[in-house]
Amino acid sequence: MIFTTVDRTSSKSLTQQVYEQIRKGILDKKLLEGQKLFSTRELASTIGVSRNVVLEAYERLISEGYLEVKPKSGTFVAKGTSLSKISDYPYEKDKKETKKLENAVIDFKGGNPAIDHFPRKKWGQLTKEVCSESQQHIFGYSDSCGIEELRNVLAVYLQRARGVQCQPDQIIITSGATQGLRLITELLISDRQQDYIAVEDPVTDEMRNIFSYANAKIHPVSVDENGIIPELLPKERPSFVFVIPSHQFPLGGILSIQRRLQLIEYARKMDCYIVEDDYDSEFTYEGAPVPSMQGIEQEHVLYVGTFSKILSPALRIGYVVLPPHLVEDFQQLKWFTDRHTSSIEQFVLARFIEDGHFDRHIRKMKKIYQERREVLVNSILLAFKKAKIIGKAAGMHLVVEIPNVDFTKEICDKITSFGVRIYPVEQYSMKKGEHKDKIVMGYGGLTAEQIKKGVKLLKKALNQI
Amino acid sequence: MIFTTVDRTSSKSLTQQVYEQIRKGILDKKLLEGQKLFSTRELASTIGVSRNVVLEAYERLISEGYLEVKPKSGTFVAKGTSLSKISDYPYEKDKKETKKLENAVIDFKGGNPAIDHFPRKKWGQLTKEVCSESQQHIFGYSDSCGIEELRNVLAVYLQRARGVQCQPDQIIITSGATQGLRLITELLISDRQQDYIAVEDPVTDEMRNIFSYANAKIHPVSVDENGIIPELLPKERPSFVFVIPSHQFPLGGILSIQRRLQLIEYARKMDCYIVEDDYDSEFTYEGAPVPSMQGIEQEHVLYVGTFSKILSPALRIGYVVLPPHLVEDFQQLKWFTDRHTSSIEQFVLARFIEDGHFDRHIRKMKKIYQERREVLVNSILLAFKKAKIIGKAAGMHLVVEIPNVDFTKEICDKITSFGVRIYPVEQYSMKKGEHKDKIVMGYGGLTAEQIKKGVKLLKKALNQI
Repeated sequence: MIFTTVDRTSSKSLTQQVYEQIRKGILDKKLLEGQKLFSTRELASTIGVSRNVVLEAYERLISEGYLEVKPKSGTFVAKGTSLSKISDYPYEKDKKETKKLENAVIDFKGGNPAIDHFPRKKWGQLTKEVCSESQQHIFGYSDSCGIEELRNVLAVYLQRARGVQCQPDQIIITSGATQGLRLITELLISDRQQDYIAVEDPVTDEMRNIFSYANAKIHPVSVDENGIIPELLPKERPSFVFVIPSHQFPLGGILSIQRRLQLIEYARKMDCYIVEDDYDSEFTYEGAPVPSMQGIEQEHVLYVGTFSKILSPALRIGYVVLPPHLVEDFQQLKWFTDRHTSSIEQFVLARFIEDGHFDRHIRKMKKIYQERREVLVNSILLAFKKAKIIGKAAGMHLVVEIPNVDFTKEICDKITSFGVRIYPVEQYSMKKGEHKDKIVMGYGGLTAEQIKKGVKLLKKALNQI
Repeated sequence: MIFTTVDRTSSKSLTQQVYEQIRKGILDKKLLEGQKLFSTRELASTIGVSRNVVLEAYERLISEGYLEVKPKSGTFVAKGTSLSKISDYPYEKDKKETKKLENAVIDFKGGNPAIDHFPRKKWGQLTKEVCSESQQHIFGYSDSCGIEELRNVLAVYLQRARGVQCQPDQIIITSGATQGLRLITELLISDRQQDYIAVEDPVTDEMRNIFSYANAKIHPVSVDENGIIPELLPKERPSFVFVIPSHQFPLGGILSIQRRLQLIEYARKMDCYIVEDDYDSEFTYEGAPVPSMQGIEQEHVLYVGTFSKILSPALRIGYVVLPPHLVEDFQQLKWFTDRHTSSIEQFVLARFIEDGHFDRHIRKMKKIYQERREVLVNSILLAFKKAKIIGKAAGMHLVVEIPNVDFTKEICDKITSFGVRIYPVEQYSMKKGEHKDKIVMGYGGLTAEQIKKGVKLLKKALNQI
């Protein structure tokens, strides 16, 4: 029999220790099938524990099937309990060092909001209130479409702020806009061999990945400073056209009303859908934001929004406004994907909106982003005489064109080694070669000081490369 | 020109009102392309507002492309701004009445935890603390695998409580076990035409739906009171075998160690995976819980767990423990599915576990569920002389066999009309006809009083049907 010892300083109970050692002995074939074990009295006295300790361990091993008792003869290792040995799997931990180093770099990544301004105190306080005041059913499963309270306030907000025309029942709360887009793709792509999506080009590579992970084929449609060019839309029916009409990423254009209407006529003629991504339109610094396309056409437009940019991406709360005939299928899909989005936070968000904190937060953030944008624009124009700022004054990123610079991957890597990271528009382009001298600079997550320092470092880098 | 009026009692600004009416007029073709508008002065005096109001509305319409200014001649409706008219889409609201009625029924649905005992005050308080004390980076995007703090405490917990052998890096936090299973299916099914999954039969229909929504084919493998029957495993390699070894749903069996090892040998020989769903093993009322299969074999087992049953399904926090070679692909898949699971709640949960509240909560719930189970068992045996309780004393459901009763859908519907809902095992079976006299009764979410009343109603119903 294997040698069993116990460690009285261990946090594990003596029974647990005896149990584990015998179990391991059986699995490792040190105790063989059919082998007789010490009696409980013998083992207890051998290792110096009370008999109850061994009794309990044996009982557990018997109930789990490792051991069997033969009346009047003793306790034996049961049949079929040993495993063929396999070699240990070597497992290396991720090297997190590189990541730490990178944090020192000033990162002009687009789409990073100002998390330093997340209303953390208010959020914590509201969560406490919701947890203590709500009825208990909120801690159970909820509907896959999201909680009613949030969809109600959201419908009112979207109508007022974005001109979206919908009933609360057409809104489905998703785990971020990412999941919204993912599920839309699954829903609208029926034939994986034939169906495809028409997508703005350039567009963020993460968007392309969402579509390809959902097994959809992509047809790029070029974008100019007024957004997607309707004349270039495919002649064969796509499953849907993906557009960001209010502030294109990365080029920053706003889709003109003429093009919006052309696009809608196209969708009607082709009987395909338009997926309208409206991720940062709340932040418009010149004039009022242009209302959504969904407000013009409800039957062919799926409107996708998120709280990641306005509040925090940590929440993972987004939403999709659907034409009524798609609601039921989408709900089912969501249920079998992840049931529903975390509901306590939905209740907190509903209260945050209802109590007016949301509107106040948007007003505050708009000022902050506008200031950050101005700092960036001024720093760029001061540092680079020939630079041109592209894109509408909105959102939390802009595009800079610096004539005669070719922002290849090598150049950008070198720039990073100076302590500042910028993103070439070419990286987001499917058709290569049209935007070589343009870079995307996100300013949402950077302070004025970081922005100024970043542009200085960029200038230094470009001078020396 | 259309007739514009303003409503001074409205919460909308005068500019907004003028803007919306003109915009609507253009889209509805009441104002035609090329038509000249009143001058700002004329319109202002017509509707009785200051000229600035109209100026602002016009400017916005110009910037959005609805209007255009022709120098020295005036403001006109721009070209390409009108839409062909479509009929309004009739949209009926869901009838929520039926749902309210249903709430009065005592529902023995399996898998519903005791949400009346969710530690709501502690949760609210910890959220408040996390929100006010944490570094700001927690409000930004986090890693798709989940936050380090939670994975660290979880690895320790799983080793201690479930014998799971893993590094924190092998754990990925998912939006509930549902998403874990969904992503595993996507990851392991490469050829949708050929690949298939071997699944315990009976098994919850929701599980089957998760697999089919991920486009996987299912091969049922029968289950008896000791869990899945290894001799019935398919001869051709499945992508994975789905099992609930610690407390099968619905039959409630614990997979014997012999069968566990046979299953592992099978997976090694076939080079396929085992997906071990361990949703409620913390609640075992006779002896200690049987350790996980993952503790015996790490390379072929994917271990899936959830906090939905122990804490609350509202949180949508589950996890997958992966063999190291699958971690990177799974992380990517998660990123392009929904980025990551809501991270503020992950921090709260990590603290909840670390501070010892989690272990205390499990001990408390174990007592509660054990009591509820005893009440149910006693009530059943008292009410039905021939009834037999099937399944290990564990979890939050059991199976009752009532000889000579055939629980068809019609019978069950009739029973529901008496105010109590039970679930026939046949509903969960792919091979029909083997479990006609068995029903599943979940007791997790019901109080002792509800359980007693429910059984009385069931008896009354069966006597009258």
